[in-house]
Amino acid sequence: MVVAAPAVRNPTPPFSTDEDGYMTCENVRIRDIQNDMDTSPMYIYSKEQLVNNYKAYEEALKGLPSIIGYAIKANNNLRIVEILKDLGSGAVLVSGNELRVAVKAGMDMTKTVFNGNGKTYQELLYAVKCGCLINIDSEFDLEHIVDAAKEVKKTANVLIRINPNVDPEVHPYVSTGLAGSKFGIRNSHLKWFLERIKEEDVLSLVGVHCHLGSTIKKVDIFKDAAEIMLGFINDIRSEGFDTLKYLNIGGGLGIDYERIGEHIPRPIDLINTIRPQLTEAGLTIIVEPGRSMVGNIAVFVSEVIGVKTSGSKNFIVTDGSMAELIRPSLYDAYQFICLTQPGGSIETFDIVGPVCESADFLGKNRTMPTPVEGSGLAVMDAGAYCYVMASNYNMKPRPAEILVDGDEWRIIRRAETFDDMMSLYDR
Amino acid sequence: MVVAAPAVRNPTPPFSTDEDGYMTCENVRIRDIQNDMDTSPMYIYSKEQLVNNYKAYEEALKGLPSIIGYAIKANNNLRIVEILKDLGSGAVLVSGNELRVAVKAGMDMTKTVFNGNGKTYQELLYAVKCGCLINIDSEFDLEHIVDAAKEVKKTANVLIRINPNVDPEVHPYVSTGLAGSKFGIRNSHLKWFLERIKEEDVLSLVGVHCHLGSTIKKVDIFKDAAEIMLGFINDIRSEGFDTLKYLNIGGGLGIDYERIGEHIPRPIDLINTIRPQLTEAGLTIIVEPGRSMVGNIAVFVSEVIGVKTSGSKNFIVTDGSMAELIRPSLYDAYQFICLTQPGGSIETFDIVGPVCESADFLGKNRTMPTPVEGSGLAVMDAGAYCYVMASNYNMKPRPAEILVDGDEWRIIRRAETFDDMMSLYDR
Repeated sequence: MVVAAPAVRNPTPPFSTDEDGYMTCENVRIRDIQNDMDTSPMYIYSKEQLVNNYKAYEEALKGLPSIIGYAIKANNNLRIVEILKDLGSGAVLVSGNELRVAVKAGMDMTKTVFNGNGKTYQELLYAVKCGCLINIDSEFDLEHIVDAAKEVKKTANVLIRINPNVDPEVHPYVSTGLAGSKFGIRNSHLKWFLERIKEEDVLSLVGVHCHLGSTIKKVDIFKDAAEIMLGFINDIRSEGFDTLKYLNIGGGLGIDYERIGEHIPRPIDLINTIRPQLTEAGLTIIVEPGRSMVGNIAVFVSEVIGVKTSGSKNFIVTDGSMAELIRPSLYDAYQFICLTQPGGSIETFDIVGPVCESADFLGKNRTMPTPVEGSGLAVMDAGAYCYVMASNYNMKPRPAEILVDGDEWRIIRRAETFDDMMSLYDR
Repeated sequence: MVVAAPAVRNPTPPFSTDEDGYMTCENVRIRDIQNDMDTSPMYIYSKEQLVNNYKAYEEALKGLPSIIGYAIKANNNLRIVEILKDLGSGAVLVSGNELRVAVKAGMDMTKTVFNGNGKTYQELLYAVKCGCLINIDSEFDLEHIVDAAKEVKKTANVLIRINPNVDPEVHPYVSTGLAGSKFGIRNSHLKWFLERIKEEDVLSLVGVHCHLGSTIKKVDIFKDAAEIMLGFINDIRSEGFDTLKYLNIGGGLGIDYERIGEHIPRPIDLINTIRPQLTEAGLTIIVEPGRSMVGNIAVFVSEVIGVKTSGSKNFIVTDGSMAELIRPSLYDAYQFICLTQPGGSIETFDIVGPVCESADFLGKNRTMPTPVEGSGLAVMDAGAYCYVMASNYNMKPRPAEILVDGDEWRIIRRAETFDDMMSLYDR
């Protein structure tokens, strides 16, 4: 029996199901892309969704001086970064190589922030040269920035990363703003940082930064954090730092991975929560969206190798695995999974890959139509923290990335090959 | 104050600490390698330890017909695989690309086993052509093997993967032999498999396979598993399969990650537990060591960027991260960490990388000498399931791998570069 069940739960264009039961991205059937590609699995992106997500931030920030700093760590595909740059986005960077990508994409460096608890000296030299805003994360980080600015002979515009100690109520692995975190300065030591910055002509203190975490679903914690940060800003300004201009509130908005219609705050909900304080303090806001910018723009599409049962459990075995998408295994993360084409009777399955360990699963206990061999399987909301964390575990090549734009699609990063993997043996 | 504390806990040559407090691998100071390399972090391997580990299996198997099938998924470095091949090792393969590495290394294909719950048809064609032993994992897997053997016009020598349902008492992610596992056939369905194999001339049933899991510290479970498997072998032989020759007992021996002198069974302990049964049944044993072959042959060496405190917690921030070594984060795995050179006063630290999330740690609550900036830091026992799972998260390049052999060392896989990462944008 073939069931033309709607594949996508809570289908929100551009990802939808057509009348024949095939999943679509914009105006293209995903199955058609799969048929045309000679490698599997793959990531498929919607340009329309990316543009919509950017515009939601732009709209939310209307009337406020602001920088949208896209967090490249979520997805560093050069073509994605180029589209965001063309829309006017800046970028938040956590490594020298991410900065290289931003430079390659032609980003306006005055809209970039260099971030991180472990910047190397070489990375700092490059960031100062490029003119990025740079977050100070610790005592040693400050000293390294001073040394780099002196070597480059250029003023470094710096922000101080403060730990507001607000609990984002998320998985510990994506919680980053608590007092025991590896990020940010000791607040009790703030005076030392201010004194040290005053001593160094090569440093100009232009702002403060905090980042609460990721997958956040309550905006009131941003309000709490903003109020704490404004307290710090007042303290810092009273020390004579009249160059202070930026409040970097970080990123962290969650997305509707469950696709059960849960209310997830939109960018405008986040910004409106803190708009009055920002205006009153005459600050430029920096936001660092990653997941909420690119999370829902992509699906991870694999092909079913076979269906089996252990007696007590049914398995869909697919050619996609923890090598290409480790979030379910690493964070116990849920991503909705559906077929890209009609299936058979409804059953409950674990969806697993071919990698030789039990950590290799994409989803557990999923009730869905039974696929035939070769069926397409889509893991939704795979735009953020998916491809970027892909490995070659079991020597699986990194998959191709494809961008859909209306009726058209094209490969925006090709699949890795065995020869690519072997190239590291050349000298 | 400089403390020349012994760096390596329970130092076992080839990794040791010299009289000046520097860590050595065979006759080479690790700090000297770090000084000569222009990239960091890196993996450093000891050839001596690799040879010793192989010889321990060879010794244990003396007098028994056997295949040592090194599990390439643990570490696929071509030079490591070549050394093992020269020693006489076979290989266990879980993907077509791993088979390509075995072919490149010149492995004897009669000593290889192709394994996995999700072999693709293309991979099976290649495995049949090469003449690997092939494990049947499920009904659909059997049908795919039949089709592949017919297309190649060559007999496939197959083993049936049976689930002995013995609890290895390890982390659920590395437990693979329980009834609810994604691996292996339904035991109650064995008769169906035997009938199906009889029907197909292109299949020759030559053995049975089981794999309990990984990081196992009690050999009696291997005895339990062997007895269960021998029961199956008797059942199968009584069905007229006189070609049955191999008992593949899998891999899974743990290693002393804690370095507290815990008794970990050696290969000879494992083999002696099951020797009488094997001899009596006239079987050739296949073992699949991965971790116990290469786990303790390497250290992951990074450089300290700085030391900070959040007030409640001290952090050593290093340029090594979850991007290069994800085991602590993924499995909550413990690996011993020490400095590669003398340090200062003894304190307790979390050892973290520069990657922008709280999942990025190498070790927590480690009491050790305080390093100065630039100090070398070694994560021990990093030969298995470390490099193979490395990603480019935060655009960190995959690190160089170095082999030490006596007084000499050389790069056996170079570090990835930014240009390597960009090459996937070429068509």
